[in-house]
Amino acid sequence: MESLLNQSRAMCPFLKHTSPAALRSMSMTATRPGPRGGTMSNLQVIARRCPVMSKALAVQSSRLASSKRFTAALSFARRDLDSSKVGRCPRSLHTTAGNGASVEVGAYERNDKLRPNMPVKPARNATTSSQIDPLLTRPRPDAPAVSTFDYEAFYKSELDKKHKDKSYRYFNNINRLAKEFPCAHMAEPEEKVAVWCSNDYLGMGRNRQVLQQMHETLENYGAGAGGTRNISGHNKHAVKLEETLAKLHSKESALVFTSCYVANDATLATLGGKLPDCVILSDSLNHASMIQGIRHSGAKKMVFKHNDLVDLEEKLASLPPHVPKIIAFESVYSMCGSIAPIEKICDLADKYGALTFLDEVHAVGMYGPHGAGVAEHLNYDVYASQDTNSPQSTKGTVMDRIDIITGTLGKAYGCVGGYIAGSAKMVDTIRSLAPGFIFTTSLPPAVMAGANAAIEYQSEYQRDRVLQQLHTMAVKDAFKDMNIPVIPNPSHIVPLLVGDAELAKKASDMLLEDHGIYVQAINYPTVPRGEERLRITPTPGHVKPYRDHLVQAVDTVWTKLGLKRTSEWKALGGFVGVGVDGAEAENLPIWQSSQLGRGENESVEDAVRREFQQLAREEEQQVAAVQRMQTGGHHAAAAAPVMGTPIGVAA
Amino acid sequence: MESLLNQSRAMCPFLKHTSPAALRSMSMTATRPGPRGGTMSNLQVIARRCPVMSKALAVQSSRLASSKRFTAALSFARRDLDSSKVGRCPRSLHTTAGNGASVEVGAYERNDKLRPNMPVKPARNATTSSQIDPLLTRPRPDAPAVSTFDYEAFYKSELDKKHKDKSYRYFNNINRLAKEFPCAHMAEPEEKVAVWCSNDYLGMGRNRQVLQQMHETLENYGAGAGGTRNISGHNKHAVKLEETLAKLHSKESALVFTSCYVANDATLATLGGKLPDCVILSDSLNHASMIQGIRHSGAKKMVFKHNDLVDLEEKLASLPPHVPKIIAFESVYSMCGSIAPIEKICDLADKYGALTFLDEVHAVGMYGPHGAGVAEHLNYDVYASQDTNSPQSTKGTVMDRIDIITGTLGKAYGCVGGYIAGSAKMVDTIRSLAPGFIFTTSLPPAVMAGANAAIEYQSEYQRDRVLQQLHTMAVKDAFKDMNIPVIPNPSHIVPLLVGDAELAKKASDMLLEDHGIYVQAINYPTVPRGEERLRITPTPGHVKPYRDHLVQAVDTVWTKLGLKRTSEWKALGGFVGVGVDGAEAENLPIWQSSQLGRGENESVEDAVRREFQQLAREEEQQVAAVQRMQTGGHHAAAAAPVMGTPIGVAA
Repeated sequence: MESLLNQSRAMCPFLKHTSPAALRSMSMTATRPGPRGGTMSNLQVIARRCPVMSKALAVQSSRLASSKRFTAALSFARRDLDSSKVGRCPRSLHTTAGNGASVEVGAYERNDKLRPNMPVKPARNATTSSQIDPLLTRPRPDAPAVSTFDYEAFYKSELDKKHKDKSYRYFNNINRLAKEFPCAHMAEPEEKVAVWCSNDYLGMGRNRQVLQQMHETLENYGAGAGGTRNISGHNKHAVKLEETLAKLHSKESALVFTSCYVANDATLATLGGKLPDCVILSDSLNHASMIQGIRHSGAKKMVFKHNDLVDLEEKLASLPPHVPKIIAFESVYSMCGSIAPIEKICDLADKYGALTFLDEVHAVGMYGPHGAGVAEHLNYDVYASQDTNSPQSTKGTVMDRIDIITGTLGKAYGCVGGYIAGSAKMVDTIRSLAPGFIFTTSLPPAVMAGANAAIEYQSEYQRDRVLQQLHTMAVKDAFKDMNIPVIPNPSHIVPLLVGDAELAKKASDMLLEDHGIYVQAINYPTVPRGEERLRITPTPGHVKPYRDHLVQAVDTVWTKLGLKRTSEWKALGGFVGVGVDGAEAENLPIWQSSQLGRGENESVEDAVRREFQQLAREEEQQVAAVQRMQTGGHHAAAAAPVMGTPIGVAA
Repeated sequence: MESLLNQSRAMCPFLKHTSPAALRSMSMTATRPGPRGGTMSNLQVIARRCPVMSKALAVQSSRLASSKRFTAALSFARRDLDSSKVGRCPRSLHTTAGNGASVEVGAYERNDKLRPNMPVKPARNATTSSQIDPLLTRPRPDAPAVSTFDYEAFYKSELDKKHKDKSYRYFNNINRLAKEFPCAHMAEPEEKVAVWCSNDYLGMGRNRQVLQQMHETLENYGAGAGGTRNISGHNKHAVKLEETLAKLHSKESALVFTSCYVANDATLATLGGKLPDCVILSDSLNHASMIQGIRHSGAKKMVFKHNDLVDLEEKLASLPPHVPKIIAFESVYSMCGSIAPIEKICDLADKYGALTFLDEVHAVGMYGPHGAGVAEHLNYDVYASQDTNSPQSTKGTVMDRIDIITGTLGKAYGCVGGYIAGSAKMVDTIRSLAPGFIFTTSLPPAVMAGANAAIEYQSEYQRDRVLQQLHTMAVKDAFKDMNIPVIPNPSHIVPLLVGDAELAKKASDMLLEDHGIYVQAINYPTVPRGEERLRITPTPGHVKPYRDHLVQAVDTVWTKLGLKRTSEWKALGGFVGVGVDGAEAENLPIWQSSQLGRGENESVEDAVRREFQQLAREEEQQVAAVQRMQTGGHHAAAAAPVMGTPIGVAA
């Protein structure tokens, strides 16, 4: 018996690590109904979960119609054991399961609470099926002797956790109206709200040229692509869109994915997994899609502090020079609006031989003279006067120096989908190796055609971007005047600091219900706990009456809920830039007044008014041109340039 | 010196594991231009890659303007070493890198070929940036002393591999024409081809009701959703679509993703990652999306032989009963057309307490009286007479017993997107936890509305499915008559065995160029090497002239390329079911004649003809009804039921 005990202890981590006291207590307490109507100790219950012990127990139980002797054996075994940790039988022991044990179904029905992380439920009867195949009636292992996992209880416990920590999400039914931009209706068509948190930043989702292109493509080429890119899903719309994207970013090549989540995930996972010994350096505020891609790559990850060049350089310098490295970061971080020091990151990448992987998801369409993003914006004048016949003219610019740019077709371009752009060989490698690209149905032709129209429109037309920036500045200024805490940043995002999950949701609900304003609360895990906020995104359609209404409503809600104002955060020493001296000076908009065509002393509201007056004049000229063509007997109206549907001069 | 050698050997796996002979040979051979114009041995080149040695070397080199003494030290160190394996310095040694070394850039320009797996290139000059920030001019580590990784060379080598093993993919530009289904044009509009490999199995991509719904939704709600489901991207179209999907599969709930790739990946990764100690049992032919999801979950994976219940049960029985398990499998395996023994897998899942995760991607819309897939089809009569007011009536059916069903909106439903359906708590858990769902822009409202219309249409209308099956049977019969090797299967897939990657591509190219027929070759890694095939997918639009043309063209190509016929495979003993006695009897279509409304002695072609005649009569009646309404003074034409655009009675 001594040798059996030693043998058991060598094999079984439970016996090895459970203290005699714990074993004793388990064999004494909490008796439960046993399979034959008797009672079972907790020790027996646990023993039955062990694939080795359960069989011994079952055999004994059927022989003796009682389990007392087995309990005695266990109490003997527990002597001399010294650790108190309850272990589990390792998997390698499980290969002998199912070789003869047999216990009634339902024996452990009431054990659900024993191990809260491992809900169990009785095994379902395997004979519900009406037909039994000869295959299944061959000699085969018997049904398991004990209860199985309770999946529904597991789901419930996961959801309970979300409710408990206030991170459970309630979706708002928001139907954005193309003809009443930026308004939407809720579940009922008459419940109208102003949308202040859409990522259709420029209203391209209702742009006439985009919609026209989509209608035509739908009619001619149907609703879906009908296959993966390799099997009947490659078409002229994909070819054209990828050409347009490569040109937009001045890269050799581009590749379209079903979303930028997939683009980031698939590209980082593929590169990180294939580049030998690759290390990925990831900004601490990177989007979930990049975090997942890095995880999926299996590559070594080093997280550097948000936008911290010193930390990044230290990490780069700690790595062997010949090892491939990817610096993965974003241009505009969407939840706080911060902008990366892209050029300096390129310097570091050059110095340490790293690839740069830049996510421009919240910047494409919005920055740069052609809407190519922040990287283009940093050499605004070069690109504004770019000679497209001479690609050499942009060599050495920040955008040129970035190796891989990723972007979306679903935000400022108003459609759906994502992409990467870079060298021809890099793009071809991802095209050839990334399962997330290869094994999925292509985007519909109409979506690709619409996105292409949106990119081309925005690469030639500056006013939407300019108005969006002016409206952003106007909103930020107005909040500042009202002592409402905007987290300072140089971009188009207007994050209002709340600092509490429940209050953020309440503020959002109150804005919606009392004021007809939809701004989603942003809680954990999208932002860290304690940094909960309302994230406001103005568009060119948010003209003065909308803005005035927003600012007043937010002010009312702040008062009603007693939310902290900027001065209060300041009194507390400041938080995430709010109430921090100098934070605003460090976060001047990267769209400069001259780029916005704004006079040195011109107010934001004056600039907005001037833009709209100019827009109205241009539209008049267009209408006149179309009328001239029509009265001239030409049927060329459709060929006349059609600008975006006017937003309406309400300023 | 002896102690230094011992110290070096303890620290450096290179010195420890490289034989004296190898060191000697490296220090003698292949001298290269050194940094100061002298020559360097291979040993020195390698030493320079070491973060410890490189610095010593650089310091010495700058002191002596020659590296002879260092080489001598290295030749001393190599004495007495006994292993021949060349190692790398471990990462833990690399933390001292960059503390003072300085060697000219470009010193290792010609070393690219030394380590084929680790291309290196000279470090780019870090001073290209025009502005240097104060941050960057702070004291910081110096630039690395040696060459960095050559990313472009890496991409090239990856692509070369693909070319070499014939797995490099060339995309065909296929523009499927909504009004000339099943035809497409190539890059030029006049280059017309018949598409025989689209997954728009039922032609729903050009269905009038689907397109009408999409046009209207585009006009009213714009091109894109404008946000994630949580932030302004949730709307009535999503609500409605998920209700329709839940109803289709008789489940409590459903959740829509941007694709079924993402649905499978996100759901398996989340469940496998969250369920404690979860084991996922995966069919060996599972789709890449499931394989990725399982990998991303980090859960233990057990691959069971394709459709092999005995192997599956052995694996299930080897696991502890209380451990959560997921059996992940497909209903129709798209590359061979095989169908899973779903009911028996449910039996095993019940017996061993496993979740069933069934991918119905190639079956939804195609099987069952409402197009809910093979699981519905297995209880055809129950669902055909289903009382939707009494959900109890379908309890215990195969579809009811499946825990998680996943499907696509991008194949038989003609749009794009994917989904899961199951219990409310399961769906809510995935909704709450899966990053691939949470952090991505919703599908466009028009896509969701179109998909919803397609599902509703197909759940009420049987003829597309029936015609698709009849056309499949006709094509399979015709190939059989011509001795063309169809891999036997009970589904709608017509895989023609070629058995060689290059020949499969040639056959595909020849069909396209000589016959105007587009059938993509399916090569590795989509199918195993040696099992290369042409995969043909008939649709309701592939009426007799198309089918006759296909069969004759394939016959010609088979002769021209000397591809093996069925009888030749049989003479070789048969392969993947081709030329195997009894394989056809084991693979009778799961659509039975009675379900197709086909008389016992009616030929397939007669059944097709009868279906089309019936279709023509129904259309006449509809036209008459609309005319009656119009002449009656009603303007109710739009409210009249509109069937799919007739395919044309050509049989």
